[in-house]
Amino acid sequence: MKLATYKDGTRDGQLVVVSRDLSTAHYATGIASRMQQALDDWGFIAPQLQDLYETLNQGKARHAFPFDPALCMAPLPRAYQWVDGSAYLSHVTTVRTALHIDLSNDTLETDPLMSQGSGDIFVGPHANIHCGDEDMGLDFEAELAVITGDVPKGASTDDALEAVRLVSLLNDVSLRMVAKSELPKGLGYVQSKPAVAFAPVAVTLDELGDAWDSGRVRLTVQSAVNGRKVGMCDAGADMAFHFGQLIAHVSQTRPVRAGAVIGSGAVSNAPIENNGKQEWPKGASCLMEKRAIETLLDGKASTEYLKPSDTIRIDVKGKDGQSIFGAIEQEVVPLTS
Amino acid sequence: MKLATYKDGTRDGQLVVVSRDLSTAHYATGIASRMQQALDDWGFIAPQLQDLYETLNQGKARHAFPFDPALCMAPLPRAYQWVDGSAYLSHVTTVRTALHIDLSNDTLETDPLMSQGSGDIFVGPHANIHCGDEDMGLDFEAELAVITGDVPKGASTDDALEAVRLVSLLNDVSLRMVAKSELPKGLGYVQSKPAVAFAPVAVTLDELGDAWDSGRVRLTVQSAVNGRKVGMCDAGADMAFHFGQLIAHVSQTRPVRAGAVIGSGAVSNAPIENNGKQEWPKGASCLMEKRAIETLLDGKASTEYLKPSDTIRIDVKGKDGQSIFGAIEQEVVPLTS
Repeated sequence: MKLATYKDGTRDGQLVVVSRDLSTAHYATGIASRMQQALDDWGFIAPQLQDLYETLNQGKARHAFPFDPALCMAPLPRAYQWVDGSAYLSHVTTVRTALHIDLSNDTLETDPLMSQGSGDIFVGPHANIHCGDEDMGLDFEAELAVITGDVPKGASTDDALEAVRLVSLLNDVSLRMVAKSELPKGLGYVQSKPAVAFAPVAVTLDELGDAWDSGRVRLTVQSAVNGRKVGMCDAGADMAFHFGQLIAHVSQTRPVRAGAVIGSGAVSNAPIENNGKQEWPKGASCLMEKRAIETLLDGKASTEYLKPSDTIRIDVKGKDGQSIFGAIEQEVVPLTS
Repeated sequence: MKLATYKDGTRDGQLVVVSRDLSTAHYATGIASRMQQALDDWGFIAPQLQDLYETLNQGKARHAFPFDPALCMAPLPRAYQWVDGSAYLSHVTTVRTALHIDLSNDTLETDPLMSQGSGDIFVGPHANIHCGDEDMGLDFEAELAVITGDVPKGASTDDALEAVRLVSLLNDVSLRMVAKSELPKGLGYVQSKPAVAFAPVAVTLDELGDAWDSGRVRLTVQSAVNGRKVGMCDAGADMAFHFGQLIAHVSQTRPVRAGAVIGSGAVSNAPIENNGKQEWPKGASCLMEKRAIETLLDGKASTEYLKPSDTIRIDVKGKDGQSIFGAIEQEVVPLTS
């Protein structure tokens, strides 16, 4: 099924069930009013939501209405835990190689890079991105995430996969120049990650069909800036750590509670060799990696970071050509406050 | 006023108002059932809780009952944001000096060290600490935290201080040997910080009286392991960045939403010079720093990290000698699951 959260003036919004084709929706009132409530008691609530979903898809839901992504908050508007991975190693190695960062001592391939983020400001798919200072290096980052149920401490990767409740698409908005001064402090991101934006709906695994492959999503994540393609990256091929491994990493020393959002990191594909030269035919899912590719190919980055009036569009289509999560469509606006 | 959350079998528990002397309590039912609800709508709800608090202190609350810290969850059992600072620079410099880490390039004094944590597993004052592997270097860390209301992006330190709703005492349980391999990855703590435990009650600023000094708490944080003093650290004297500065740091590039928990880091005092020798008469608020002091004085650490059956007690007394937050009293137990 597909779930979204409609704006209603409150911090948590109203849970709605959305039809498979994203055309209609129905309030989940009477089943669960908020997404976190559904996640807290998934075994009891999910079957009821599923029943409503099926009725909606059959066109038989009495109080259905046209679904409008512009009215959406993030499917889970605030989360008690947000941990972002960096599961696509080509994202890390391309960027670090361009920056001449030594990779020889890295444990990249055996120990997932992950970092805690803030779950208090998840925003909807059409939320403006406020740009106060263009020198901060404003960037998007297209990635997938899973939302979990309860995961016991020390869960196996199989148990961790069992705990996946929903899959989501997000834009992990980043301030690259802020990160440049923040990351050397060694404690991750505090100032360099503003509000994360989410696609309109989060979906259960059955919605992905064969594309859900034991913790990897074998679909293409499409990213565009100002209508021009930045990436058409295969989310399955080069994901070094699948979602079960990422969740198990987080839960190795502590339980993880229902509603944790675990991100994949920017979707990325390894370069291919062509006549002894590296090529990146699928592009990238963020401008930092695009700039790194330009630097490796041409000696310098030609793409600029985002500035006011730029637009970002991120989407994932299923094998039938239909959008699975709905699109993220954001505009960069000047900070006016 | 003083607020706590009683266990009721749910994830968020029941909000209770606790008398100043921690002897009696009263459910806040009818005003707010959960702490987050009060924080979300503080301006409306806090005055009603305050009225109940005054009635309770006068012994006139009709349904008051004896307050039992053993029945407490954390005052805010799960939070949408937990950011821990490292505002006591002597904690950082003592530990790094003992480890021979170069401090010359640090921006410690101008740029606060802060790191995002997980808010999904805050536990109560008597929660057992599960020790699966003694080699992980299990440690406590006694610190203070504030719980905020909404803070706008780019808030001044004064505005940030205005947003402080409650002050709390906590044990930031840490796995030092896990951190030793995790921190070099440069992205902060994911596996090395299990559940944070909180003292029974969180208090409004007026409860601290003069001891609340523009973002610093001028009181002593007492820590003991197995009944033996580890630290009697002055929380006011050496806090290089006060809570207003820590909150402003977090909100520099994004709004911070109601219910964010901002920690001070382990309370610590700078050493004093005595006949040309350094001394730490106030001890430390964690074993890592105690071990660092031992290393600096004796060439090696003699204190071991925590192991099953060890007990930890953390408390802060007001100028009248009464406990302000109630004590954290935890026991380390073997992992049995």
